[in-house]
Amino acid sequence: MSTGMETRGEPVTPVNPVDNTTVDIAALLERGRTLSTPVLKAAVDRLAPPMDTVAAYHFGWIDAQGRPADGDGGKAVRPALALLSAEAAGAAAEVGVPGAVAVELVHNFSLLHDDLMDGDEQRRHRDTVWKVHGPAQAILVGDALFALANEVLLELGTVEAGRATRRLTTATRKLIDGQAQDISFEHRERVTVEECLEMEGNKTGALLACAVSIGAVLGGADDRTADTLEAYGYHLGLAFQAVDDLLGIWGDPDATGKQTWSDLRQRKKSLPVVAALAAGGPASERLGELLSADAKSNDFESFSEKEFATRAALIEEAGGRDWTAQEARRQHAVAIEALDGVDMPPQVRAQLTALADFVVVRKR
Amino acid sequence: MSTGMETRGEPVTPVNPVDNTTVDIAALLERGRTLSTPVLKAAVDRLAPPMDTVAAYHFGWIDAQGRPADGDGGKAVRPALALLSAEAAGAAAEVGVPGAVAVELVHNFSLLHDDLMDGDEQRRHRDTVWKVHGPAQAILVGDALFALANEVLLELGTVEAGRATRRLTTATRKLIDGQAQDISFEHRERVTVEECLEMEGNKTGALLACAVSIGAVLGGADDRTADTLEAYGYHLGLAFQAVDDLLGIWGDPDATGKQTWSDLRQRKKSLPVVAALAAGGPASERLGELLSADAKSNDFESFSEKEFATRAALIEEAGGRDWTAQEARRQHAVAIEALDGVDMPPQVRAQLTALADFVVVRKR
Repeated sequence: MSTGMETRGEPVTPVNPVDNTTVDIAALLERGRTLSTPVLKAAVDRLAPPMDTVAAYHFGWIDAQGRPADGDGGKAVRPALALLSAEAAGAAAEVGVPGAVAVELVHNFSLLHDDLMDGDEQRRHRDTVWKVHGPAQAILVGDALFALANEVLLELGTVEAGRATRRLTTATRKLIDGQAQDISFEHRERVTVEECLEMEGNKTGALLACAVSIGAVLGGADDRTADTLEAYGYHLGLAFQAVDDLLGIWGDPDATGKQTWSDLRQRKKSLPVVAALAAGGPASERLGELLSADAKSNDFESFSEKEFATRAALIEEAGGRDWTAQEARRQHAVAIEALDGVDMPPQVRAQLTALADFVVVRKR
Repeated sequence: MSTGMETRGEPVTPVNPVDNTTVDIAALLERGRTLSTPVLKAAVDRLAPPMDTVAAYHFGWIDAQGRPADGDGGKAVRPALALLSAEAAGAAAEVGVPGAVAVELVHNFSLLHDDLMDGDEQRRHRDTVWKVHGPAQAILVGDALFALANEVLLELGTVEAGRATRRLTTATRKLIDGQAQDISFEHRERVTVEECLEMEGNKTGALLACAVSIGAVLGGADDRTADTLEAYGYHLGLAFQAVDDLLGIWGDPDATGKQTWSDLRQRKKSLPVVAALAAGGPASERLGELLSADAKSNDFESFSEKEFATRAALIEEAGGRDWTAQEARRQHAVAIEALDGVDMPPQVRAQLTALADFVVVRKR
């Protein structure tokens, strides 16, 4: 989607439209990383060998040969949100750190298992764990990170930690439901836009929602406040995923770390695709015919760049690209609106708003 | 091991040696099943399709075609222990039910993932989930059962539930550590008896320990009481595993539902094997030579019954069978002794003692 804002390389510093304060997104993401990474590393260090090494490889802290690496640990939107979540409840950002770490552990547990289930060989410009260390280690270390997430919270020993763990558990169950839906879609010829949105809400929305409530819960927020913050996070997650779906087809491989036409190569029924198929009209019908034939094709793997470009062009012509970009903006707006339901420091509101802006304009 | 007690078919009703009360083991196990299975089924029913069906197949409630089945759901020692655990703390058995269900969910999560990691094709006389429904479903449904375990406890919303979940999380982490150790042993020529015991304590002892504390914690027991009950459960688990290791080599396939020489076929470094290798002497040395050659052999799969029988005989001759039977009795004694540290109703103490007796004399 084109917003005219360039975010390649360092994140931009948008001027917040609500109150004209300037929010430094790069600093906000960096704070999340700086506060949570040492705690995350200490948690991972508790794993018995060789799981500690496999996890360290997954997080990009070491390379496949075990040498220290300064890998790309991802955008770190979730840790930043968890710290803001604590501040939204009037607590110090540090109160959100165990929540940030627990959410990152669950997120990475799901990446380890999903990459194996989906047969994905690359993530963040590197070979995935199952490619390097084998399927058993991908399963086992995923399990260990999931258990560790609960441990990091519950060892706080507070009533709030129990409530936070319960929310994280609910989010994790939805995450798993979403992956189950995603897998089932692969075997179906048609998926409705509604089904796709439900799957993405489970797979991406639920954990982002939890990231935005977990710090507040650890800071003593009541359930109503936590629920409202989750509404912001859930719709932010849907906006995030809509942008991801756009990048999965039209993203710059250098920025995303994925192949060109990545989602088309994997025959993903992502939002632009299902929206284009649902739109009707000549381009939509032609796309439907091509994708039906592709599903039965045996030499799909050998498709040329041009064949994927044809499909991408048809998706765009049928309106799938525009619809998805619009959906990202719509979910972004609903997310921002949800923030009105919580009484929070103005600076925190401005930062949550700016993070939402960042999510929809990002290029990776 | 020969104890002179026959337990094939219905469990026997041993006379408790401590106070001469008669404990009906079959009724005790049945109570655990009767109280926990409906709650377990209701929890599994919450899973999104097709995960609910895959889980129902794993638990033996339906067959591979989805028809109702009355499968072998296992011995159900853990649920029985969780209910006794609540009673040990002076609470009603029913208080332990969410704990029983959570422990069963974690146990079955680990079975689903371990069967896939180990490549095991049969469990409880049936094809394993990954064989029937594929690796992705085995991973996904395992994840879902793990999440469900936490959900079942945390939705109680009590401080005790938080404490119970923390103990379950600790046990689950140890379970995963144990599986990591078990996998790493496969790639090593020699494993010490101590390493094997540590692995089995993690893989079997920790969750059995949790089963024996979780009901008490839900019933309001303090940490000291819970820790003492865990000591009983941990050593009971080691006794249980020692018997399992004996059955894995010399068990009756009709009773165990496994192949003859099952653990030898899988080249498992179980207690009888490591004890025999550590014993020294001619049989031990000959066994070591054979197993070293087996590890490098390419036609190991085509070994005859006689070749496995030779290995089993050498293990026995080197003393591995006797040592393991003795180890089972030793761990059994330590477990029983731990019960002295907890003030509990005499009937509950008699039942926990009888269950420990049952675990070491079982034939499956």
